Amino acid sequence: MSLTFSRRMERVRPSAIRDLLAHGADPRLISFGGGYPDQRLFPVAELRSVFDSVLSDATGSAALQYTTSEGLPALRAAIADRLAAKGTPTAADDVLIVQGGQQGLDLVGKLMLDAGDTVIVEDPTFLGALIALNPFEPQYATVRIDDEGMDVEHLETVLARHPETKMIYTVPDFHNPTGVTMSLARRTRLIELANQHDLLILEDTPYRELRYDGEHLPTLRSLDTEGRVVHLGSYSKILAPGMRLGWVIADPDVLARLTLLKLAADTQSSTLNMSAILAYTQQYDLDAHIERLVDAYRIKRDLMLATIDDTFPAGIERTTPSGGLFTWLTFPEGFDSTAFMKDVALPEARVAYVPGASFFAVDVKTNHARINFSGLSEDDIVDGISRLGALLTTHLK
Amino acid sequence: MSLTFSRRMERVRPSAIRDLLAHGADPRLISFGGGYPDQRLFPVAELRSVFDSVLSDATGSAALQYTTSEGLPALRAAIADRLAAKGTPTAADDVLIVQGGQQGLDLVGKLMLDAGDTVIVEDPTFLGALIALNPFEPQYATVRIDDEGMDVEHLETVLARHPETKMIYTVPDFHNPTGVTMSLARRTRLIELANQHDLLILEDTPYRELRYDGEHLPTLRSLDTEGRVVHLGSYSKILAPGMRLGWVIADPDVLARLTLLKLAADTQSSTLNMSAILAYTQQYDLDAHIERLVDAYRIKRDLMLATIDDTFPAGIERTTPSGGLFTWLTFPEGFDSTAFMKDVALPEARVAYVPGASFFAVDVKTNHARINFSGLSEDDIVDGISRLGALLTTHLK
Repeated sequence: MSLTFSRRMERVRPSAIRDLLAHGADPRLISFGGGYPDQRLFPVAELRSVFDSVLSDATGSAALQYTTSEGLPALRAAIADRLAAKGTPTAADDVLIVQGGQQGLDLVGKLMLDAGDTVIVEDPTFLGALIALNPFEPQYATVRIDDEGMDVEHLETVLARHPETKMIYTVPDFHNPTGVTMSLARRTRLIELANQHDLLILEDTPYRELRYDGEHLPTLRSLDTEGRVVHLGSYSKILAPGMRLGWVIADPDVLARLTLLKLAADTQSSTLNMSAILAYTQQYDLDAHIERLVDAYRIKRDLMLATIDDTFPAGIERTTPSGGLFTWLTFPEGFDSTAFMKDVALPEARVAYVPGASFFAVDVKTNHARINFSGLSEDDIVDGISRLGALLTTHLK
Repeated sequence: MSLTFSRRMERVRPSAIRDLLAHGADPRLISFGGGYPDQRLFPVAELRSVFDSVLSDATGSAALQYTTSEGLPALRAAIADRLAAKGTPTAADDVLIVQGGQQGLDLVGKLMLDAGDTVIVEDPTFLGALIALNPFEPQYATVRIDDEGMDVEHLETVLARHPETKMIYTVPDFHNPTGVTMSLARRTRLIELANQHDLLILEDTPYRELRYDGEHLPTLRSLDTEGRVVHLGSYSKILAPGMRLGWVIADPDVLARLTLLKLAADTQSSTLNMSAILAYTQQYDLDAHIERLVDAYRIKRDLMLATIDDTFPAGIERTTPSGGLFTWLTFPEGFDSTAFMKDVALPEARVAYVPGASFFAVDVKTNHARINFSGLSEDDIVDGISRLGALLTTHLK
């Protein structure tokens, strides 16, 4: 047998790092590699009660049946109301419910991209977005990112070099992998540039509500003057990823097409899980739950940053995230964080992270790492970071 | 704003029929249009108990967390064991858990199809498969289907005319829309032809376990001699569609690639729903539940066929399905079933079906309709079919 797969499969390749992390699933391993929320904080009892009420005689059958591709109408309305209350005007009809934020990336890639089309991404950018978009065979152009997020002056230069660009992908709040947040001035300028060049902006906000310091900034969607921002959000980080629910917000013309692609891709999201999340938001206080997460993650972030500062040798920089799940390390030039993890950190200290190389769409830089602080216990954060610090101190001497 | 969408969107169009059925959601409407299971038969109390146990203190957190893209290992093993016990040798590693059978179609389309590639489908074929595959911009070639399923002699002719064919899509058991089942001789010959032409066969089996007469025939996957059959199955029709879970069975080389596409598309299926279905299969008897469905649907099928025979005028043919959810009507040449539904059946009798035109990939025939018997009550079956029969009698006079 010699099946010929589609050409796009040349862009769909296993990740060596993923395999390394999967095969290193040693119980003694301390992994800063995932983007997992802390499962000790899931509202398990509340969700148990919610499923019990949804699966009652009165509502259980409907919750187990098919519904519309757009998603459960009452949950679409609840998502719209919540976004609107927090400053992003949204109608129920602007909402498509998807199987986690990742599906939003897949559907927007399908909507927009022919082979060879250009997508602008931050340098570095979210690995999952590259994984989602690669099957549509785009080219990437990259824009520098600093402590105020995407560098919009550099974006102008990149747009001048790539007039064929179709969309810009960004994580403006607590960026993955760097943890930085785009300033208001840059958000405004980004919208102006997108208008000027007639581009779609894909705004990905899975961490947005997990802010530990300062004030929330307006979403790009709320600053959008021409309906060209597609906004993605998710319950994965604020409630539970195992329910696989997120949302896409877009203007009607775009949303109608994304809905046809959702129908094609998997008919609809889980009626049962949509019903349960709707009931959760009606019977419990999601905002209060998020406050508890924020309080817990703030402590973890502070502990991680302090432990890095205490135990890492000079010459390693880190970002100071005001929210989200990650900090981003910059090792000295010439340092290979992939080799260091494989040859030193994993065998000698049983510590893992995501080597930064995975997050660069074009020019790969080897001297970075993404470190997650949400998923681990406080003890493991101190223990793992200290072990890593000791090894780096020896290694970088 | 004038966004340029991808070229594939020319193939992703709203369906007039879908809109007609959606807007016709009058409570007095009797719709034979959907492919819905009867929600009165869902094991609601059992699933309520199962979710209660999965969301216990001991297991709730893990059930709400991320898991692997392949799906929950224990559920993969359970699916493999069940298939193997029923005659299709399967290992846990051959199983990818997906968000309903529809996602299997999307992933296999992505895996195999470049724009312009040829897919062979039955004439007519499942509309949802065309919807899933269209975004990959294939050409279709069609093969006749009769009471023994896909006509493999005609397939030989079609293959000779289309040597560029990459895959054959089929619903061998209780075909959608016609309800017919492929004979064993034809299954064997289909495998031979696929081997000879080095093609992938996509075997879609959502209705397979809903057999009302006769003996189960071997799956194409079990007859496969070279690992070229990708087998799709689903919990939607045997348990509950609102949980959105199905499976893809394939050889390791194909399965590994489909898993990468699953990761790209939506990371993974719902951990919670996978955990709940696993617990259901451990705590309850899925086979006994399916027997209850079979008993109930057999009665509905018999009632529908008898009512058609009693009330329809001469000149309308129907199939006799041994299982599944549908029968297929053939009206006299020149009859337009879309116009009849819109202009006569909906306004005058408030009865809907799916006009056959939707199911033809190449040459559209207007004189057919697909009629579902699983979703409605016995009273509605008799009432709706009788009303349709009376109108047809008047109209075809």
